[in-house]
Amino acid sequence: MRKPLISLTALLALTAPAAAQDETPAPSPNQIVAEAAASEWVGIAPEDLLVMTLAPAENGSERRVIIQLMPAPFSQSWVQNIRTFARSGWFDDITVNRVQDNYVVQWGDANYDNPESKGEPKALPDALVATDEADYTVSGEAIGLSTLLADSERDLALDADTYIASDDRTAAVIIANGLVDSYAQLSLFHAGWPLASDIGSEGADPRVWPIHCYGMVGVGRNMSPDAGTGAELYTVIGHAPRHLDRNIALAGRIVEGIEHLSSLPRGKGQLGFYEDEARRVPILTVRVASDLPASERPAFEYLSTDGEAFALYADARANRRDPFFNVPAGGADVCNIPVPVRRAG
Amino acid sequence: MRKPLISLTALLALTAPAAAQDETPAPSPNQIVAEAAASEWVGIAPEDLLVMTLAPAENGSERRVIIQLMPAPFSQSWVQNIRTFARSGWFDDITVNRVQDNYVVQWGDANYDNPESKGEPKALPDALVATDEADYTVSGEAIGLSTLLADSERDLALDADTYIASDDRTAAVIIANGLVDSYAQLSLFHAGWPLASDIGSEGADPRVWPIHCYGMVGVGRNMSPDAGTGAELYTVIGHAPRHLDRNIALAGRIVEGIEHLSSLPRGKGQLGFYEDEARRVPILTVRVASDLPASERPAFEYLSTDGEAFALYADARANRRDPFFNVPAGGADVCNIPVPVRRAG
Repeated sequence: MRKPLISLTALLALTAPAAAQDETPAPSPNQIVAEAAASEWVGIAPEDLLVMTLAPAENGSERRVIIQLMPAPFSQSWVQNIRTFARSGWFDDITVNRVQDNYVVQWGDANYDNPESKGEPKALPDALVATDEADYTVSGEAIGLSTLLADSERDLALDADTYIASDDRTAAVIIANGLVDSYAQLSLFHAGWPLASDIGSEGADPRVWPIHCYGMVGVGRNMSPDAGTGAELYTVIGHAPRHLDRNIALAGRIVEGIEHLSSLPRGKGQLGFYEDEARRVPILTVRVASDLPASERPAFEYLSTDGEAFALYADARANRRDPFFNVPAGGADVCNIPVPVRRAG
Repeated sequence: MRKPLISLTALLALTAPAAAQDETPAPSPNQIVAEAAASEWVGIAPEDLLVMTLAPAENGSERRVIIQLMPAPFSQSWVQNIRTFARSGWFDDITVNRVQDNYVVQWGDANYDNPESKGEPKALPDALVATDEADYTVSGEAIGLSTLLADSERDLALDADTYIASDDRTAAVIIANGLVDSYAQLSLFHAGWPLASDIGSEGADPRVWPIHCYGMVGVGRNMSPDAGTGAELYTVIGHAPRHLDRNIALAGRIVEGIEHLSSLPRGKGQLGFYEDEARRVPILTVRVASDLPASERPAFEYLSTDGEAFALYADARANRRDPFFNVPAGGADVCNIPVPVRRAG
């Protein structure tokens, strides 16, 4: 039996009856997010934002992609390296080299590890730190997972299947906060990120890890035990390839401008690499937002995943009651509840 | 407890031990498909294939999309209408009007139900049949679901959680054939299609329905009880929007050329509609393959979802053992096991 994990804050927020009793149409997930109190939004540190500027599109329009780096305790060696690459200018003039439909867009130094390239690979910055595949996951204790779980078990004593079969708000919130997942004992949201855990596995030292949802940014690597430096990055542009979880480091997610990557022409080579070098898309610069002048510094915030609005939003994603829908699903997978992120201020 | 549903043919195929004992690297899912016996492939009737030709790309290259229509017992009123639209020439000169990132691409008559359009909507063909939202799902009996389930229960007497937690081939095949699903009591493959069912719900008359995986083609509609005619179609270009299951008719899937749709520029209007009419992509013709001259008729086949190769493939998708991977997932969601489809002959 999978163990439920629920935010108690979220649960307490749900004592109000569902909206179905009156004539007001149930709000859509987007409406719930739009109406969330300002206090439910959490600012993202400029140190955790990268501004990646691609060469302009053919029609001359700007193409800018904003990446949020993962916070501690996740993937911090790769995150540190990525800041080093950005600050040393190493990322400037690399290219998007691979666009594989329903999978990933990948960018890096096209001359690296490429027997067909004529150029020399760039020398890596001196200040890189070592990375270790053991850090694809972290201890559940690092995010207080066992305490959260014990609280939810004590207070709720849930029979998971009853809740899956029912169609009420609480069920959906539980599902959104950690229940039915095809890839792990548990999936959940913590500090604004989608995660999974093996905490339900018998005898295991519980681990937690970030997961490959649409728009997540991962670190390319060679064969194990290589874990990648952070020089080569990719983002997910299709159905969540969750089989990559725990096999590659995830270092962040795209919070704006993913369409500049997801709508690129697909590569015709193996794995979607561009066979024609001319198709590669130049990346002009990558900057840490905190290094930019205040006037150019983007500001973003995410909807707290511990709050009332997120609980309602997750519930609405799992049980669409807005007028277009006939049948609420009664559940959702963790990657189909994207954490809302928006421009701040 | 979710009920397992497994193809017995598939299970019997798995009595050989896993490959891990010797030095041969485990095959990737693609290798398994490439090595499948010719007898495992099932031809797709030309009557079930549509050839949709878009206006050439800016560089002059052809853009052709091949759609496979759903077989009985699913969505046959919409499928019949779609053939009528194609054969009457009604689809010719419609446009792609909507491209929403991580969601859908939609095509149809841009003047239909569009208060901003200057043109008149096309008159619908006379021969359309009525559609009914009750047909978003079909009886489980129509595919022999209860017999399949009874067989698997009798022969296997499985404890689902034991299998989820274990890491063997059988477990993965069971998962792939109907176990852990965030949106339904059961998901499964039947006759080459991904499906879901509520057969595990107590007291329900069991239903089965096709599901919104990447590349599936659905039928746009207005508010219920409108169920759409088939004039307005969309395909999924992002993470599976399974909340649409049972809320919209699914009529087929794209089996070739989805990149011509998924890589289109995203629309900047609400829901990803193109605000600038000039961005709309003309659809020149849509033809039923059986109506084309033999020399132009495409031939496709799918990997039987009841056979040994599919079972091995599904298992390999759920438990990657090829050399790049450190940790097999121990499961997969039904939309991350795309049914292999290829050109025949």
